[in-house]
Amino acid sequence: MKNILLIVIDGLGDRPNAIFNGLTALEYAYTPNMDRLAGMGTNGLMYPVDIGVVAGSDTSHLSILGYDPSLVYTGRGPFEAMGLGINVKPGDIAFRANFATVDPSGTVTDRRAGRSSMETGKLAREISMNIDGIDFLVKEGVEHRAALVMRGKDLSPDVSDSDPHSAGARVKRIEAKSESGKFTAGVLNKYLDTARKILRESPSNSKRKQHGLPEANELLIRGAGIVPELQDFSSKFGLKAACVAGVPIITGIASLAGMEIHKNERMTGTVNSDFDAKISTALDLLGKYDFVLVNIKGPDVAGHDRNPVLKKEVIERIDKAFERLIPAGSGNVICITGDHSTPCSVGEHSGDPVPILLYTEGCRRDRVNAFNEVASADGSLRIKSGEVMRYLMQMSDRSEKYGA
Amino acid sequence: MKNILLIVIDGLGDRPNAIFNGLTALEYAYTPNMDRLAGMGTNGLMYPVDIGVVAGSDTSHLSILGYDPSLVYTGRGPFEAMGLGINVKPGDIAFRANFATVDPSGTVTDRRAGRSSMETGKLAREISMNIDGIDFLVKEGVEHRAALVMRGKDLSPDVSDSDPHSAGARVKRIEAKSESGKFTAGVLNKYLDTARKILRESPSNSKRKQHGLPEANELLIRGAGIVPELQDFSSKFGLKAACVAGVPIITGIASLAGMEIHKNERMTGTVNSDFDAKISTALDLLGKYDFVLVNIKGPDVAGHDRNPVLKKEVIERIDKAFERLIPAGSGNVICITGDHSTPCSVGEHSGDPVPILLYTEGCRRDRVNAFNEVASADGSLRIKSGEVMRYLMQMSDRSEKYGA
Repeated sequence: MKNILLIVIDGLGDRPNAIFNGLTALEYAYTPNMDRLAGMGTNGLMYPVDIGVVAGSDTSHLSILGYDPSLVYTGRGPFEAMGLGINVKPGDIAFRANFATVDPSGTVTDRRAGRSSMETGKLAREISMNIDGIDFLVKEGVEHRAALVMRGKDLSPDVSDSDPHSAGARVKRIEAKSESGKFTAGVLNKYLDTARKILRESPSNSKRKQHGLPEANELLIRGAGIVPELQDFSSKFGLKAACVAGVPIITGIASLAGMEIHKNERMTGTVNSDFDAKISTALDLLGKYDFVLVNIKGPDVAGHDRNPVLKKEVIERIDKAFERLIPAGSGNVICITGDHSTPCSVGEHSGDPVPILLYTEGCRRDRVNAFNEVASADGSLRIKSGEVMRYLMQMSDRSEKYGA
Repeated sequence: MKNILLIVIDGLGDRPNAIFNGLTALEYAYTPNMDRLAGMGTNGLMYPVDIGVVAGSDTSHLSILGYDPSLVYTGRGPFEAMGLGINVKPGDIAFRANFATVDPSGTVTDRRAGRSSMETGKLAREISMNIDGIDFLVKEGVEHRAALVMRGKDLSPDVSDSDPHSAGARVKRIEAKSESGKFTAGVLNKYLDTARKILRESPSNSKRKQHGLPEANELLIRGAGIVPELQDFSSKFGLKAACVAGVPIITGIASLAGMEIHKNERMTGTVNSDFDAKISTALDLLGKYDFVLVNIKGPDVAGHDRNPVLKKEVIERIDKAFERLIPAGSGNVICITGDHSTPCSVGEHSGDPVPILLYTEGCRRDRVNAFNEVASADGSLRIKSGEVMRYLMQMSDRSEKYGA
């Protein structure tokens, strides 16, 4: 039995770019290591979640890891909360949240409180509390972002947002969307009233004012979701698993699946992340774990920025880090794919498939000698993300025979 | 967001033909416009309904339009009745019907009444009536063909045919296949007895006799089906939709889906249909509608006639009409595919996949430079008909992201 290294390059897929004479960033980039692995392995296209679906990173990673998002995806809140370091538990209700600026009449003047994270960590701790037996946990994120988690009995995600979703509107009261949401809505309104008073009186907001920043005097919440129970990855597949990733949403999913998270401050989840550190960390972990998931975020960021030249450069730096994968592929199974396409011409995710390559010594080969959206289509696989784990299991000689 | 033009060439797929040295009609035909679109777009093979299914035009079109035929296909009767212009409603029971010739003993002498439609329109109106609170609506079709629709309370499709399916046999009494079909069978027998008397005494049948035609003195019915409720296409996909088609079964499906039907007398649904009129009508409609479905029937007719030379010629004339699609593809999404294969060597539908091409400016390209059963297999897509709408939605930038 071999161990498995699964490398998911976020937003990898693209569409033709005029600046590359109609090639994609991945086609145009100089990627000798990916191409060499492609030439030695099994290639094809992967449809994230399903063919034509415009998948998010969260739903696609869940699906790649063998969890059907139609059963376990309960909104972005729970996954972001995990990613911000809140140790969420199944049954918790989680919201995405913004620190915002509100005038005395209750009208939102800046939904993002100047996009500044100054003192938001302290503010988050100040408004983490227990009300009527319910724990309210707030954790700050990048810039104005945060997450709110409610923990306790009789909670339901069937409640509306307080976030009016536009400046100039008033903060909304939480309302129950059904009978089962009534208790949650009630205690949530009580909590938000309390939090509002604390935020307005906090010395942290005085400090923000001294620095010329808008006060973070309101926590706007949206997208209630219940934290799902994911079957432990190690019991699901019999694989002791680790995750190397810089972005909260991926480490959150991996945590919920029971994987151990390995990250350091050089793994930033940006185009400047230390790709070499990720790959060398992952290869070190492959000795201690049966399965290592690596997420590399950079190309997605370049796609969202509509910057094909940056995407190409990031891909070339990633490929450089892949140099050491080739010897590692002899004793392990290596899979490289994307979680979705983020075409530079679109600036958002699209439903185009992504290339996938799988390599281990002695594996089935096809005629593909390059790793990209066009060349990989000559390969043998057309695979949905939810089928990837099954394929990896058989390539690593870990599958049980179905039948005799 | 772009608009979508979906062109379904009926019976497009084929198998090798000896007369073309083992090529299919589509491979052998000179199709510079389809080939050019293929070279600019995303290609592949589509499995009608599902891989290996020998799909009908009705089940395949339902599936392509996003309706699962296993849920909504209730037999051909409802769809043919719609296509003949009966404004069927969900819950109606519909039958396919033949005007037939029966001798005084009740034995069928000609199941198709000389294949003549003479006076069948008048006869159909004469035997449209209300019995015991149930409306019976009859509409004539091509040659001897017709449809019967029952409308009223407590009706069930669980009844047998009156059509014995062969000449020399006696007309059958309708029987209930279950308890729930008893009322329907009873009122239907009463109706058929009444209709029989009217048909025998009708001056229209005297006229037929004067013209040397067999009397159309019996309405043989078969294939009871209940008209299904289809979710409105515009609410299902958020697309205001039109259909350009000449054949009743397709316009029937489109009507049931709430599409507006555009046809004129030059769109005949035959090999001599005015393909240019169809495409120019469709392109005009693309300005006013978000989605236009075009059905082109000719190649299916040639396939059923086992005539590969005719099929090739029809395909070449269709391709000529596609000349104007290329400029239209810049601002819209264009999809060309078939609804099933009708191999000339078989003369009937087969379960072989059909080529599919999708093109819009800036879309993902692959290495395919021709549109046919063989070349398209080098493309990136292996898609089931039920997945086509989702793919078109993402190509037209209309999909919502699933996740974050």
